[in-house]
Amino acid sequence: MPDAQAAFAELCSLSRQAAVLGSVSALLGWDQETYMPAGGSGARADQMAALAALVHERRTSTRMGDLIAACEGDAKLLGEADGPVAACVREFRRDYDLATKLPTDLVAELARVGSQTQEVWKAARSASDFPMYAPWLEKMVALTRRKAECYGVPKGGELYDALLEEYEPGMTSAQVGAIFTPLRTRLAAFLAEVKGKGKPPSARCIEAAKIDPKLQHEFGLFVLNAMTFDLNAGRLDTTTHPFCSGLGPGDTRLTTRYRDERFTDALYGTMHEAGHGLYEQGLPKSRGATGPLGDAFDPFGTPMSESISLGIHESQSRMWENLVGRSREFWVWALPHARKIMGLSGCTEDELYRAVNTATPSFIRVEADEATYNLHIMVRFEIERALVKGDLSIADVPGAWNTAYKDFLGVDVPDDRRGCLQDVHWSFGAIGYFPTYTLGNLYAAQFWETIRRDLPNLSGQIASGELAPLRQWLLENIHRHGKRYRAADLCERITGRPLSADAFVNYIERKIRPIYGL
Amino acid sequence: MPDAQAAFAELCSLSRQAAVLGSVSALLGWDQETYMPAGGSGARADQMAALAALVHERRTSTRMGDLIAACEGDAKLLGEADGPVAACVREFRRDYDLATKLPTDLVAELARVGSQTQEVWKAARSASDFPMYAPWLEKMVALTRRKAECYGVPKGGELYDALLEEYEPGMTSAQVGAIFTPLRTRLAAFLAEVKGKGKPPSARCIEAAKIDPKLQHEFGLFVLNAMTFDLNAGRLDTTTHPFCSGLGPGDTRLTTRYRDERFTDALYGTMHEAGHGLYEQGLPKSRGATGPLGDAFDPFGTPMSESISLGIHESQSRMWENLVGRSREFWVWALPHARKIMGLSGCTEDELYRAVNTATPSFIRVEADEATYNLHIMVRFEIERALVKGDLSIADVPGAWNTAYKDFLGVDVPDDRRGCLQDVHWSFGAIGYFPTYTLGNLYAAQFWETIRRDLPNLSGQIASGELAPLRQWLLENIHRHGKRYRAADLCERITGRPLSADAFVNYIERKIRPIYGL
Repeated sequence: MPDAQAAFAELCSLSRQAAVLGSVSALLGWDQETYMPAGGSGARADQMAALAALVHERRTSTRMGDLIAACEGDAKLLGEADGPVAACVREFRRDYDLATKLPTDLVAELARVGSQTQEVWKAARSASDFPMYAPWLEKMVALTRRKAECYGVPKGGELYDALLEEYEPGMTSAQVGAIFTPLRTRLAAFLAEVKGKGKPPSARCIEAAKIDPKLQHEFGLFVLNAMTFDLNAGRLDTTTHPFCSGLGPGDTRLTTRYRDERFTDALYGTMHEAGHGLYEQGLPKSRGATGPLGDAFDPFGTPMSESISLGIHESQSRMWENLVGRSREFWVWALPHARKIMGLSGCTEDELYRAVNTATPSFIRVEADEATYNLHIMVRFEIERALVKGDLSIADVPGAWNTAYKDFLGVDVPDDRRGCLQDVHWSFGAIGYFPTYTLGNLYAAQFWETIRRDLPNLSGQIASGELAPLRQWLLENIHRHGKRYRAADLCERITGRPLSADAFVNYIERKIRPIYGL
Repeated sequence: MPDAQAAFAELCSLSRQAAVLGSVSALLGWDQETYMPAGGSGARADQMAALAALVHERRTSTRMGDLIAACEGDAKLLGEADGPVAACVREFRRDYDLATKLPTDLVAELARVGSQTQEVWKAARSASDFPMYAPWLEKMVALTRRKAECYGVPKGGELYDALLEEYEPGMTSAQVGAIFTPLRTRLAAFLAEVKGKGKPPSARCIEAAKIDPKLQHEFGLFVLNAMTFDLNAGRLDTTTHPFCSGLGPGDTRLTTRYRDERFTDALYGTMHEAGHGLYEQGLPKSRGATGPLGDAFDPFGTPMSESISLGIHESQSRMWENLVGRSREFWVWALPHARKIMGLSGCTEDELYRAVNTATPSFIRVEADEATYNLHIMVRFEIERALVKGDLSIADVPGAWNTAYKDFLGVDVPDDRRGCLQDVHWSFGAIGYFPTYTLGNLYAAQFWETIRRDLPNLSGQIASGELAPLRQWLLENIHRHGKRYRAADLCERITGRPLSADAFVNYIERKIRPIYGL
């Protein structure tokens, strides 16, 4: 066995090899959603399975395990407890322990069936045909449960915790519940007040505008530039569902979708994905990047070039979409440009600000407003948790979904297309993923309180389109650290307290009340 | 060792694994040329190198060698000498023998440096800066020579033969020379006659038309449909240099490029690549395809799903581009549609037919007309052969290029952008590739003579846009056989004689003379 220093270098090199192959998988996924012809789906599933197996073999090699053990025993190498090397070794260990619990055939099968199920989902969703989708969802839930069983139930926890751990390391179902329950209570009370006594703002100025998607795209690129998203190291395409894919050093790809109507949907989709994209571009991935491991060290493929968790990732996207994009200051700056670039007419800043800040329950998550969005997440959390527990059968998903929407949001779901078939996540086995969306909203609101203190002129900067200072703050306090801190630690470091629903609910109430005349 | 039948099945399965990874490489290449942001080029080179090494390891495993040997010894398995199983084993042997001669690090290095050199070439070409490109070309020539040395010089041959073998199996430099020399002599004499006594047709009707690229694209898709190219299993994008990439079963991608001027350039680019694409779609690649190995057998990844050679591939593209697309009958059918879809006005069938059939020396290969195209190839053949021999230094390439253009085509090359920097091929190490373009032209013309006999109504069919019978002929006589026959054998089977320049020169003279009033 080499000495600890050499072991660490070899570990990083092996990890980088896995990361290069992982980045190829990410391109395959991006291409499947953007440009792959339908006829290519069978071959794509084979490619995904082959890559997943190769990555998995690399993540689980005996050599990897030996090298991690060699590093763990060496206090001199590790340095301070939350220093970058110690954090790398901690994350290598976590990844290795998780990965070695999964047999390669299960990993390949999840990739293959996940790729196929996504194609079935596309067809089933557009036909609103749940029975077409059901046998595939059944397969994916069974495979995902098998994965969770391989991971094992944590002490005092439940099977679902094992899945949550993959997306939000360190978070348990019980903790999520403890945050979600008061959030739901406060939101329900507030929404009842809004519904009972509030006067809804008019969305007419947005509804009336019909804007050519080409011009919307041009405006989107303009906003991306203002956000300091580097289009030389990224791009913006069109897909059914917007997403961001960090494909590796120098290659971060965003997608959005355009309709002539409601140009703000595409705009906020773009800003949301660009929030993810700025995080990806801010992670020290490139060779020669000044990462926490030092100048001469290539951080790509090490935990220092990776995001902390999906919740933290989502905090970045929701911050840019909502706390920046749905602010009055944003429209002070953006409206003249929207007029010039898209020919927008007949909207004032105030009308736009009010129109994009409603509190109206609806049935499509990605179109939900800020005040009701988290209730959509809670529906999914309950249903997927029940699926994993075995308390809910696949056939009963549509019924449970519709009942929960009535219960949480007070709306009647018209059909499965706009009900339980609306999201792609379960199709590729992403169960345990949805809660991170709400965690992201809460992190964003809680971080925002600190940011406002640190950047006293933030409102003025946004109102003049100077978004670089905010980006710089995020870079220094979040992005450049990679996975050095766990989410809970980062939250404490930045805000001085653990995550709770308070900052978010306070923010929403303060914003919505005046708009609804309360 | 398993019995021969089991060995053959395992061989096909191992080969399929390599093919799946190879198809991922093809996607990486396609993406690099279409959508990858510039910032992603470093990571792309790493990905290419990693995949190339993985594919190479699979192509060269000891197990592979053992299995091939087990099959070769079994007459019952092999069946008739040119039967599909014998042909598969023959090609597995050839591929294994070639691949095992190359060390993995050389394969990875060729992929990595090739990916990087392509990016340098893009910049150097647009700046017409040969000195910027020279050190990278130097590297690629050195790596390619190293590759040729690993393959070894065939008895009585030269180093260049080893490279040619990769693209046109069974063909030697001497054979190429024996075909090219009379071709050059006859073309030179004919072009002198055309220049001296011919009256050039007017290209005004094409030059005058300015057509929106969107409408050109729509027309291109219309022609693709008529050619029976399956757009559900393929697509058409825009790139600097048109190409076709057969990414695997059900996924064949074409690219072309548009300018407002000279809509026929994009059209013929599309038809050319679609000719390649029909070959790819015609190869029995898909699971369940009725391939030569029988219904139940998945031919993907075996030689039965692969094209014979680049020369035969090019015969398909040039046939659709030129023998179909530049015929009078094509315009009889296409002109009304061009009028309707693109709003083309002021062109008659006869004007179009004459305008796209000139015989005018020029300096850009991809824009060259049918009569002078092969002279561009001969320039490249001479130069790359000299580079491999060591008779020409990198610094002398521009001078040698310009001298050869004066000598072969009588034109003065204005700058390196329009001279030796115009083609991408050498950048990714494709040396020995260019001759296959001319071989393709000659195969196409020689095949065409047989096709006209087999399809007596071909002219009438083209004139009414019925292109399916021609496609069916190609499918039955070429595509569905995969690599069953070597190119020379296929040529004998189809035309009853070895390849020569005769059919091509006869065809060109017969076509051009009346257009030039000779």
